[in-house]
Amino acid sequence: MTVKKRISILGSTGSIGQNVLNVVENFSHQFEIVGLSAGSNIELLMEQIEKFKPKIVSIKEKKMADLIMENFKGVEVGYGEEGLEKVATHPLNDMVVSAIVGIAGLRPTYKAIKAGKNIALANKECLVAGGKIIMNEAKERGVNIIPIDSEHSGVFQCLKKEKKEYVKKIILTASGGPFFKTSIKELQEKKVEEALKHPRWKMGKKTTIDSATLMNKGLELIEAYWLFDVNPSQLDVLIHPQSIVHSLVEFKDGSILAQMSITDMRVPIQYALSYPERLNNSCLFSLNLAEINTLEFYSVDKRKFPSIDFARKALIEGESLPVVLNAVNEVAVQAFLEEKIKFTQIFKIIEYTLDKHKKENIEKIDDIFRIDKWAREQAHKLIKKGL
Amino acid sequence: MTVKKRISILGSTGSIGQNVLNVVENFSHQFEIVGLSAGSNIELLMEQIEKFKPKIVSIKEKKMADLIMENFKGVEVGYGEEGLEKVATHPLNDMVVSAIVGIAGLRPTYKAIKAGKNIALANKECLVAGGKIIMNEAKERGVNIIPIDSEHSGVFQCLKKEKKEYVKKIILTASGGPFFKTSIKELQEKKVEEALKHPRWKMGKKTTIDSATLMNKGLELIEAYWLFDVNPSQLDVLIHPQSIVHSLVEFKDGSILAQMSITDMRVPIQYALSYPERLNNSCLFSLNLAEINTLEFYSVDKRKFPSIDFARKALIEGESLPVVLNAVNEVAVQAFLEEKIKFTQIFKIIEYTLDKHKKENIEKIDDIFRIDKWAREQAHKLIKKGL
Repeated sequence: MTVKKRISILGSTGSIGQNVLNVVENFSHQFEIVGLSAGSNIELLMEQIEKFKPKIVSIKEKKMADLIMENFKGVEVGYGEEGLEKVATHPLNDMVVSAIVGIAGLRPTYKAIKAGKNIALANKECLVAGGKIIMNEAKERGVNIIPIDSEHSGVFQCLKKEKKEYVKKIILTASGGPFFKTSIKELQEKKVEEALKHPRWKMGKKTTIDSATLMNKGLELIEAYWLFDVNPSQLDVLIHPQSIVHSLVEFKDGSILAQMSITDMRVPIQYALSYPERLNNSCLFSLNLAEINTLEFYSVDKRKFPSIDFARKALIEGESLPVVLNAVNEVAVQAFLEEKIKFTQIFKIIEYTLDKHKKENIEKIDDIFRIDKWAREQAHKLIKKGL
Repeated sequence: MTVKKRISILGSTGSIGQNVLNVVENFSHQFEIVGLSAGSNIELLMEQIEKFKPKIVSIKEKKMADLIMENFKGVEVGYGEEGLEKVATHPLNDMVVSAIVGIAGLRPTYKAIKAGKNIALANKECLVAGGKIIMNEAKERGVNIIPIDSEHSGVFQCLKKEKKEYVKKIILTASGGPFFKTSIKELQEKKVEEALKHPRWKMGKKTTIDSATLMNKGLELIEAYWLFDVNPSQLDVLIHPQSIVHSLVEFKDGSILAQMSITDMRVPIQYALSYPERLNNSCLFSLNLAEINTLEFYSVDKRKFPSIDFARKALIEGESLPVVLNAVNEVAVQAFLEEKIKFTQIFKIIEYTLDKHKKENIEKIDDIFRIDKWAREQAHKLIKKGL
């Protein structure tokens, strides 16, 4: 029997975190949990502690940490940023799953890398906002960053052992979201309930709206840039409503490799955890292409969905722009969810703030937080004054 | 600049041979021709000699060889089996393209492997009939066998650096041929002209009929068995009328890699020649999935097309059965082309002869020729007496 891989999860009570624990549970001979961290879902965290017996846990607030300590003697319990960092850098960790949502995931992931831990990456902001710093640090420490996102996991698998110079194009697929067939005119009047009806994946509200604006692909394009070290012009998106093909790599010799699987996050999660091995997955259904029968592909209507172009432009123009893009998008989506702005105003707020931003280089983590803050304030102002 | 790869082609005037030379011409800095061999198309062979300046050539008959010698001083010219062998084993060869059609390709390819030459393999019989001997010899000599068939080239690329133990299934796609939508009842009465209307690839008559019976996939399944060293039960076929996805590999973790390209034989040929490199292919069109829009997949109706099951059964039952399958199929297809038998009688002749054959192990090349001969005689007898 092989030695178990020891894993800590940053964000264990979220959707990705829960799926990671499901995989760990199904492969109890391969993986064990060292640490867990959560925001405020203390109830679920306590269930997870009970079940997975971590050595260390962390939660947002001290009060909650005290409560956990009372209930689980012998478990090291921390809270806040310091607690998170302790989970991220625990000496027993072989791998850290970065699954906190939002910019809050950046610093602990960075610390984990600095401590030489391999990363299974689900947090978007680590690369969208912190790409340069995160990848430089990973390179320096010889740390693997294995993507959990199904699109990037697919690219990672297609690229395996292929030289970067052979790559012509990396294509991420998008389901197209609920408004794929909506006319540009109708798009303006789309309501929150309509935007939340995602045809394929079940996700949080923010991500579902990102999927309706295609901004999720814009952000993924930025992540792909950092993960796979290609030019922004080599990155593209195809609409693929069935979400079976997650991504494609076109090589310079005209050959394309594509990665497919059923739409279940446990497939890429398992790959990230077990990499470089593949584990026999008898718990999941096989993909039956004959049953699915049809795979469709469409170009993105960039006039209707400018998100991909925003992202590519942000990548080309400068290091701070992706930070702005990400932050403004978050604020704008929230405003849309609160019915303060119309659907298409999300694009306008992003465009306006990107234009207004004076680009700068990013040298340290704090630069990111500063720019992120600036961008959020700008976006809030814009929303308040009614654009 | 890198050293040029020196290539000889067995079967340079056939369809594959001509495409190989087209690739060599387009990449004149990467490849040069050492030897060429042809059957009786002396005119084309002489054009090729003029253009590619080989050091050695071979043709079927002495008279033709003499004629070539008169025209090209300084070129070594051989004929018949001995001439072929000289081309195959020429000391300057880095790689030998095995592109002779039929069982005649087996012996010279075997000799090339014995001489330690890497093989770009297009000839089916090398593996269908000679799989054990060819692969054992290749293993012993440390020789690479790189498939030229688009389906196997696809699998080869998907499998690159993945461990065999991770493979769950290898799936070859089939266009479905002209009778994909024909009812089993109508199939009986299908005429030669109808069977020759292949929807995708332009090929020779024999191969086009094999594509209509799906026997091409049966034979490819046997080749895949030898190339990729999996169990017969791990090999399968999917109908994919667009012929864009050439093959798929399903891994045990539920992930599938697929290889795609435009339907142009130069893509897999170039890959085989340049392996392990990939060369920038600016001469061919890129695959535009949005333009193609739809990829369809269907199960094979095995009652209508028993070829895949014949092949799998032949693999499971014994070493001599694939030899019989291949030989009988060739005779039956010829009889159909000559309108001596009906379309569905191809299956009956194969089934009957397979059943009649007493399986034996294959220890040497001559065993293959003996069994091949026996099977052809049996098939001819069956056709003569009217089944």
